[in-house]
Amino acid sequence: MKIPNLKFSAAATLPAGFRAAGIVAGLKKSRQPDMALFFSDVPAVLAGTFTTNQVKAATVRLDAERVAKIGVAHGIVVNSGQANACTGKQGLKDAQAMAIHAARQFGVAPETFLVCSTGRIGVPLRMDIILPGIEKLATAVVPTGGESAARGIMTTDLVPKRYTATFQANGKTCRFTGIAKGSGMIQPCMATMLAFLLTDAKIDRRALQKALKAAVDKSFNRISVDADQSTNDTVLLLANGCAGNATLKPGHRDWPAFVAALEGVTFRLAMAMVRDGEGAQKLVTVRVQGARTPADAEAAARSVANSFLVKTSWVGSYPNWGRLMDALGYSPAEVDETKVEIRYGNLLCTRNGLKAGASIEQLSKIVAKKEFAITIDLHLGRHAATVYSCDCTEDYVKINK
Amino acid sequence: MKIPNLKFSAAATLPAGFRAAGIVAGLKKSRQPDMALFFSDVPAVLAGTFTTNQVKAATVRLDAERVAKIGVAHGIVVNSGQANACTGKQGLKDAQAMAIHAARQFGVAPETFLVCSTGRIGVPLRMDIILPGIEKLATAVVPTGGESAARGIMTTDLVPKRYTATFQANGKTCRFTGIAKGSGMIQPCMATMLAFLLTDAKIDRRALQKALKAAVDKSFNRISVDADQSTNDTVLLLANGCAGNATLKPGHRDWPAFVAALEGVTFRLAMAMVRDGEGAQKLVTVRVQGARTPADAEAAARSVANSFLVKTSWVGSYPNWGRLMDALGYSPAEVDETKVEIRYGNLLCTRNGLKAGASIEQLSKIVAKKEFAITIDLHLGRHAATVYSCDCTEDYVKINK
Repeated sequence: MKIPNLKFSAAATLPAGFRAAGIVAGLKKSRQPDMALFFSDVPAVLAGTFTTNQVKAATVRLDAERVAKIGVAHGIVVNSGQANACTGKQGLKDAQAMAIHAARQFGVAPETFLVCSTGRIGVPLRMDIILPGIEKLATAVVPTGGESAARGIMTTDLVPKRYTATFQANGKTCRFTGIAKGSGMIQPCMATMLAFLLTDAKIDRRALQKALKAAVDKSFNRISVDADQSTNDTVLLLANGCAGNATLKPGHRDWPAFVAALEGVTFRLAMAMVRDGEGAQKLVTVRVQGARTPADAEAAARSVANSFLVKTSWVGSYPNWGRLMDALGYSPAEVDETKVEIRYGNLLCTRNGLKAGASIEQLSKIVAKKEFAITIDLHLGRHAATVYSCDCTEDYVKINK
Repeated sequence: MKIPNLKFSAAATLPAGFRAAGIVAGLKKSRQPDMALFFSDVPAVLAGTFTTNQVKAATVRLDAERVAKIGVAHGIVVNSGQANACTGKQGLKDAQAMAIHAARQFGVAPETFLVCSTGRIGVPLRMDIILPGIEKLATAVVPTGGESAARGIMTTDLVPKRYTATFQANGKTCRFTGIAKGSGMIQPCMATMLAFLLTDAKIDRRALQKALKAAVDKSFNRISVDADQSTNDTVLLLANGCAGNATLKPGHRDWPAFVAALEGVTFRLAMAMVRDGEGAQKLVTVRVQGARTPADAEAAARSVANSFLVKTSWVGSYPNWGRLMDALGYSPAEVDETKVEIRYGNLLCTRNGLKAGASIEQLSKIVAKKEFAITIDLHLGRHAATVYSCDCTEDYVKINK
C-alpha cells in the first residue's frame, strides 16, 4: 500500500515531547560515550520485545515485567560497556536502583523508568560511575539530543544507527524515531541489540504491542551476523501522543501510515545492523522459496545465512554454490537436491541441483558487490522466507578474540 | 577395562593382507598427492557409516548401497580435489566407472570396490586424469604404502592422520590401522572427513557394523570445527581375517580387545582432526554434566562448542565465561542460570551462574594452553555429554574465503 506523505531520513530527530542525551560517564577504558537517556515529558504508552535466551540480563527481567504489568513509561536509561547479565540478585538491585535514581531526577514514579545495559557479561555494574552518570544525563537531555544518545549506546558498532519517519494522522504530522545498536552476537532471533523507538503519535496500547511484535519479526528477527543470540536484546517503543491525533488502532484510516512508519524504521535499522556486522563488508539477502512448509523455508534460509563456510566464501567473492547446497542439505528442512535451483542476483547458477546457466566469471561479479541477493528455489511447495546476512571476514575474529 | 597387549602407534603400518599407495595424479594445481588406493588380497568383511546430509556425494550413495547389500569388499579407491557431489547422474556413472576400472586392475568383481571423493562440490570429475591414476595406483600398491596413502587423501589437512593398534585374538597378533582426512566443514555429525579402517582380524559382519557405529558416535561424531556438515563423509572398515583368529563377536573372550583397538584408533583420529582444524591452534574439551536429559546434555555441549563467539574468545586466551552462559541460554537444552557451575580445567570459575572461585588471571593461564577442558554442570539432572572443539582464528577465514 502506498502511504502519502510518509518520509524517512537517516537522522535521530526526536518526536514532540521527547528529550535525550548521550554522555561519557567513564565505564569504558576508551572514554567513548557509554550512557544515554530518553525522556518523554508526558507518560507514554509502552510496548516491548525481548531476547528469548534463557539467560537474561537483569534489565531484561525488569523491563519485560514493566511492559507486561505497567504499560506506561516516561523514560529509558541505558549504559554500554557492562551487560548486567549473570550478575544475580545484585544485578536486579542495580537495575532497579538505576530506574529509581533516574526517576528521582525527573520527579516521576520509579516504575515508569526502563533500564537497558549492553557490554561484557558477568561483571557487576559500576554503580559508582552509573549513578553520577544518570545525574549528568538528567541535566543534559534536550529535544535535539537524539544523535548524541545514538552514540551513547554503541559498543562495537562503527556507526550510529538511527532513522526518523514522518507521517500524517488525523491531519497531524507525527514523527517516529528509531535509535539502535548492535553488530555482533546477532542471529535472527534478536541478538545483542537494543532499539529504542519513540513516537509522538497516540496509539492504543494493545495495538501497539501487536504491531511492534509484527515489525520485529520482519526486521530484527530476520538478520544474522554470527548465529549467536544475546542475553540483553531489547526493543522498546514509547508513544506519547504529543502530536495530538486521535488514538490510532486497526480500523482507523491512518493506522496503515503508523504501521508503515514503524516497519520502515525497524527494517532500516535492522539492515544498518547487518551492514555494520562485526567485520562485515557485504549485505547478502538469502531468500528461500518453493519450500514445503513455512518452517522449512525458515530453516533452509537460516542454515545458509548462518553457515560460516558460506559466509567466508562471500569474502573471496567466489560463487561457491556447492557450499549453499551443503548447508541446505544439513538443514532440518526437506530438500531434494535434484530439484534445487539457485540464482545469484538474476543470474541462474544451479538447476536440478547441478551447475547451469551463468559462468563462474559472471556470477563472481555479483558476489563481488557490496550488496547482492541469493534466491534458492527448493521446488517442493509454495512457502518462502528471507534472512539478511553478511560475510565473515578475518576482522570478525580480530574483534572477538 | 584394561586390555593386555593393546598398543597404539602414530603410524600407518598396514595389517596383513593389505596393500596401499598414494600418488600425484594431477587433479590439484598444487601438484600435491591427490589419489590413494587400499587393497586387500582376500575379500574383507565390510562396514561403513556415512554423512546424514540430505545432499550426498555420488560416492556416498554408491558405497552406502554396497555396505548394506554386499558387505564384502576388496578395495577402496579415493581421490581428493573434487568431491563428486552435486554432479547428478554423470557423478554416479563416474563413481561406478572408478570402481569398475579399479576392480579390473586387480581382477576382482567391480561391486567389491568402494569409491571416495573429497574436494570441491559441483565440479564434474576429471575422469581423463582419474582413470590413468587408478592404473598407476594399481601398480604402486605395496604392504608398506599406508603412509603414502594417508598423504594421498589430504585436502586442507596440514598433517597426515593415521594410527595403528595391535591386539591379541586367540593368541594371534592382530593389527588395526586407521587412516583419515578432515579439517574443515566439520561438525559433530560426521563432516568433511574420510576414514579408512583396516584390520586383519576376522570379525562377524553384523557385529562389525554395530561396533563401528558405536565407535563413530564416540569419536568422529563428537568433534566440532565449524558446525558445517559435508556431503561426502564416509567411514569404511574392512576386516580381512588374515591374522588367522577365530571369528570375533560379542561374547568372544577377545571381542573387548578388538573394540578397544577400534575405539582407540577412531578416537585418536578424531582428536587429530580437531587439532588440525582449519586455522585451529587449540583443542578444547567441552563437557556438560548435570543435564535433565541426554538430549539436553548433547544440545548444551554442542551449543557451546559450536558458538563462534566462544571459539574466537579462546584465540585471545581470555576465560570469557559470559559467552559460555550466553550459548547455554540459547541452546534448546533446559538451563537455569542460577544453578550453572563452570570450571576451566580444575579451577572453579562460575557458581550459581555468578563469577566465583579462581581469578581471571589464573583462568587465563588455562585458556592459554594448547589443550584444556571446560566442565559445565547444569545441576538439573544426571546426564552428561562431551564435545571436542577448537578455536576459530583469522586463519579459518583465510583458508575458506
